[in-house]
Amino acid sequence: MKKWVKGLLVSGLALSLIPAVNQTADSVGAQENTPASKNLIVLIGDGMGPAQVTAGRMYQHYFHQKPYLALDEIFVGNSTTFADASESGGNTVSGLVTDSASSGTAFATGNKTYNGAISVSNEEVAKPYASIIEAAEEEGKATGIVSTARITHATPAVYASHVRSRGNENAIAAQYADSGVDVLFGGGERQFKTSEEGGKRSDKNLIPEFESKGYEIVRGRSELMALEGSEEKVLGFFGHSHMDYTLDRDADVPSLAELTDTAIDILSRDEDGFVMMIEAGRIDHAGHANDFPGMVQEMLDFDAAVKVALDFAKEDGETSVVITADHETGGLSLSRDNIYELNIAMWDDARQSSEVVGKALNGAETAADIRKIVADNMGITDLSNVEVQFIMDGDGTSYGREGGYNAVISKRLLVGWSGHGHSGVDVGVWAYGPIADLVRGQIDNTDIAKSGAEVLGLDLDAATRKLQQKYMYPKFKMNRTNEVLYPARALAEALDIELGFDAEEKTVSLMKEDQMLRVEIETLQVGANEQREAWTAELDRGTLYLSIEAFNLLSGMEMKWDALSERLLIDAVGE
Amino acid sequence: MKKWVKGLLVSGLALSLIPAVNQTADSVGAQENTPASKNLIVLIGDGMGPAQVTAGRMYQHYFHQKPYLALDEIFVGNSTTFADASESGGNTVSGLVTDSASSGTAFATGNKTYNGAISVSNEEVAKPYASIIEAAEEEGKATGIVSTARITHATPAVYASHVRSRGNENAIAAQYADSGVDVLFGGGERQFKTSEEGGKRSDKNLIPEFESKGYEIVRGRSELMALEGSEEKVLGFFGHSHMDYTLDRDADVPSLAELTDTAIDILSRDEDGFVMMIEAGRIDHAGHANDFPGMVQEMLDFDAAVKVALDFAKEDGETSVVITADHETGGLSLSRDNIYELNIAMWDDARQSSEVVGKALNGAETAADIRKIVADNMGITDLSNVEVQFIMDGDGTSYGREGGYNAVISKRLLVGWSGHGHSGVDVGVWAYGPIADLVRGQIDNTDIAKSGAEVLGLDLDAATRKLQQKYMYPKFKMNRTNEVLYPARALAEALDIELGFDAEEKTVSLMKEDQMLRVEIETLQVGANEQREAWTAELDRGTLYLSIEAFNLLSGMEMKWDALSERLLIDAVGE
Repeated sequence: MKKWVKGLLVSGLALSLIPAVNQTADSVGAQENTPASKNLIVLIGDGMGPAQVTAGRMYQHYFHQKPYLALDEIFVGNSTTFADASESGGNTVSGLVTDSASSGTAFATGNKTYNGAISVSNEEVAKPYASIIEAAEEEGKATGIVSTARITHATPAVYASHVRSRGNENAIAAQYADSGVDVLFGGGERQFKTSEEGGKRSDKNLIPEFESKGYEIVRGRSELMALEGSEEKVLGFFGHSHMDYTLDRDADVPSLAELTDTAIDILSRDEDGFVMMIEAGRIDHAGHANDFPGMVQEMLDFDAAVKVALDFAKEDGETSVVITADHETGGLSLSRDNIYELNIAMWDDARQSSEVVGKALNGAETAADIRKIVADNMGITDLSNVEVQFIMDGDGTSYGREGGYNAVISKRLLVGWSGHGHSGVDVGVWAYGPIADLVRGQIDNTDIAKSGAEVLGLDLDAATRKLQQKYMYPKFKMNRTNEVLYPARALAEALDIELGFDAEEKTVSLMKEDQMLRVEIETLQVGANEQREAWTAELDRGTLYLSIEAFNLLSGMEMKWDALSERLLIDAVGE
Repeated sequence: MKKWVKGLLVSGLALSLIPAVNQTADSVGAQENTPASKNLIVLIGDGMGPAQVTAGRMYQHYFHQKPYLALDEIFVGNSTTFADASESGGNTVSGLVTDSASSGTAFATGNKTYNGAISVSNEEVAKPYASIIEAAEEEGKATGIVSTARITHATPAVYASHVRSRGNENAIAAQYADSGVDVLFGGGERQFKTSEEGGKRSDKNLIPEFESKGYEIVRGRSELMALEGSEEKVLGFFGHSHMDYTLDRDADVPSLAELTDTAIDILSRDEDGFVMMIEAGRIDHAGHANDFPGMVQEMLDFDAAVKVALDFAKEDGETSVVITADHETGGLSLSRDNIYELNIAMWDDARQSSEVVGKALNGAETAADIRKIVADNMGITDLSNVEVQFIMDGDGTSYGREGGYNAVISKRLLVGWSGHGHSGVDVGVWAYGPIADLVRGQIDNTDIAKSGAEVLGLDLDAATRKLQQKYMYPKFKMNRTNEVLYPARALAEALDIELGFDAEEKTVSLMKEDQMLRVEIETLQVGANEQREAWTAELDRGTLYLSIEAFNLLSGMEMKWDALSERLLIDAVGE
């Protein structure tokens, strides 16, 4: 029994089979035809673990005399965050510590997957999973995605795109143009522009495509504020990459609360209701950097957006709000070094994020330069020589001097970090409206998507089936001539093609209905129905790869490779 | 405004004035005369922060195929844990990071206080606060206290004793004899025995006093199991100091679940109902030591006790159960060093707690000795020279080689700690029965006591008033002749005595009704009603101290000093 479950864990299945311990969805879902809510607002604090929330509250209490966060009013539960187990460089990773892509897929679509996956399954030939926003599109609801990160970053991406790898942000941007999502507000304009224009794309500028589909394009806070609310589709850019940290924003960078308010204005005009996701993406970034004062301000920027959403929901009366985090970032501890104290009086001293300070520190040549930069930003004028040297040397990670600076500051603030990565602790769940009863208690992050669909009366499975009839996401390789090849066994399985190996003749055979293909392993010659074909076959570390012609012949389909999104377009499934 | 609140923070008041954001106690308390529950079981996981809970669940899932803890079924909220601000060595400490005494006082009595206080107020002349167990005694309910720590440790102590300093465990033991608490199970027999008997007391062995009050005394698991359940009062010792860690227990050390089961058996026979507190005290100790595998086992020992309590409550139908932690310990992070992974397969490898291993390591003389001890306990046979040296050198704290060992093991397990102290993160709240609706959402730890009193229909304030008519806990000093002296201004204020200073005559005067006392500051001579008295007056760093005669004269009372409990016994308040 023990072995069996361990085996399952390794194969990446066991953890996704857990039922929610106190999921009440079944009992509430009795009236399938009368959705409990017309609208749904999902708010995600990226990297917002338990200590991040407590720190935000402590700050509000100490500096603003508010003993509670807006969040606190609607705390309902905790969520597990783990990913599916998967492979990484030939090693199995447990999945116990998730990334934003995997956890985002979980709370956007209701499915566990591997770290890095943007709403596709954990399989060699991955299948797309529909998000609650895609399911809402099917029902004619208005939809929106708002983030302080690049709009193509993992958390927004899982709601309206599907790729094997979160790094493929250019594909994510392109998929948005076909997504039907009405409001897209965030950073990341670079993913929409060509490299000649200072962007990251090699194909084309995507903006004209959005414009032709009726999107108004806005840039910066003043253009955001000039929107009338009557627009139907808006693509808003508020940063080349991520939006600036709260501490670094100038007057033309809106707050997340302002973005939220404007997005609600636009979306709430749709008579069919709306679904939107609002992400505070940089709580996570400040956590990665171990920038405590910066993290606290991102946390409060998020809480202000929560208040906007909650106020709307209370007024509106037809809106469910659900809030969670994808994971904790940084292993933050509110104490350190055996001292039962926090230097909270200093938490408000940072003038800029460590991202900005780090750049200045990288230009420092002398100890005096370091001292001046730290004094200017934190008001600390008594740095020890050891502290200065530590900043000079950097913290030994890619964060360099910024990391060294944050280590020195965190020690003085009396907060601790366990590294620059994520951690596996449960995250909070907050909810208002009919969804609250579905996500109360100890839940899993997949319950967020399922409960959202339930209160809105949306069919995630149907939306997923529709996607899976269009796209497959196989692992693949490109050979020396840039031909895309697919793993024979995995893709054959996905297409219901029978695969056999004749050890005597050293031949792999693939069969489906009256079609037959043979590959001689030694010569790698391909024969189709007894006729020799010039199609490519390659062996790579024991795996046989074939080109698309082989699978099209066998399946009777005319699949095409979408090189940007690294997926197969299926045009004739089931024929 | 800002300044005002900061000032309050410093004086230690502001934080205790926070109302619970979503406290529903008022609405539920409508029917004052029909308590919602007859019985209450409070379970405390000492040091059980969010990451400790997640770690316990991960372990249960991976090694025992149980995807959820018993706890998870009844998760209802989060609690803030902060203490009152206070003085420490002349410096104000913020109180944002609590100790077990302060947080225990909060959830046992409903009052915030300073770190170190056992159910007394944060004042120079502290007042006792009654706990829910003391209030239950007033109503004739049976009561019990169970802990895997010394029964005189802070968390059990706050329920049935009152001292200024948690270190005064001998007084706590003596107060238990007068507490009326029916079941006392835990470690800490040493606080009941004299030093001649191997104990810690200089006065007397306390056991005869308990026996004369009808307590049956049991020691060890076999005597525990031999109890018939019909006993009315039992004092059970399961350790000289703390009970052994779960990993180190032999057959005669019961589990916390067994202690819980037996205690419930005894207490549930009382027709008036019962109130009990069950503490897993050593989650905290393992956290302090940074002993991750040991901590996980203490967590599971606690969860098994939770299951016993829950099963009883479900069967019984008249019992509320509430569970929380006092604080997080160790700043635990479930990941570290920028790696998105946990080495969970190793979490079960420890054969003994690091407390035991540390003692063996202290006796190691060579690298080979270290290697053998680590191999024997964790199965690790490839320690690097750096790791061996780190263990040899110790971690630079009082944990020495045990600390070094835990640092090495934690790094391999991929878990992080921020130190050996507590941290300020919110802790979870779990509840079953009528109390659940009172502690749902984001609450403060004081709400635990208040909600418990409410569901049981107990009057904490009345019980507190009764205690405050008996005892005062002034700060005091002992002079060179071992006379106890009290701060004149603070005790005068507490006793409603008027205090004045005549700068010309350099005289302090104290007056109440027709009594008058003068102290010449330069000579420190005391005059009472124009007559010179040989009573002691001393000046110490600007504070005037006087002996008890002065206050007895002025107040007309006959207060006596209880040297063991360091308190004044009041026999004539108000006369």
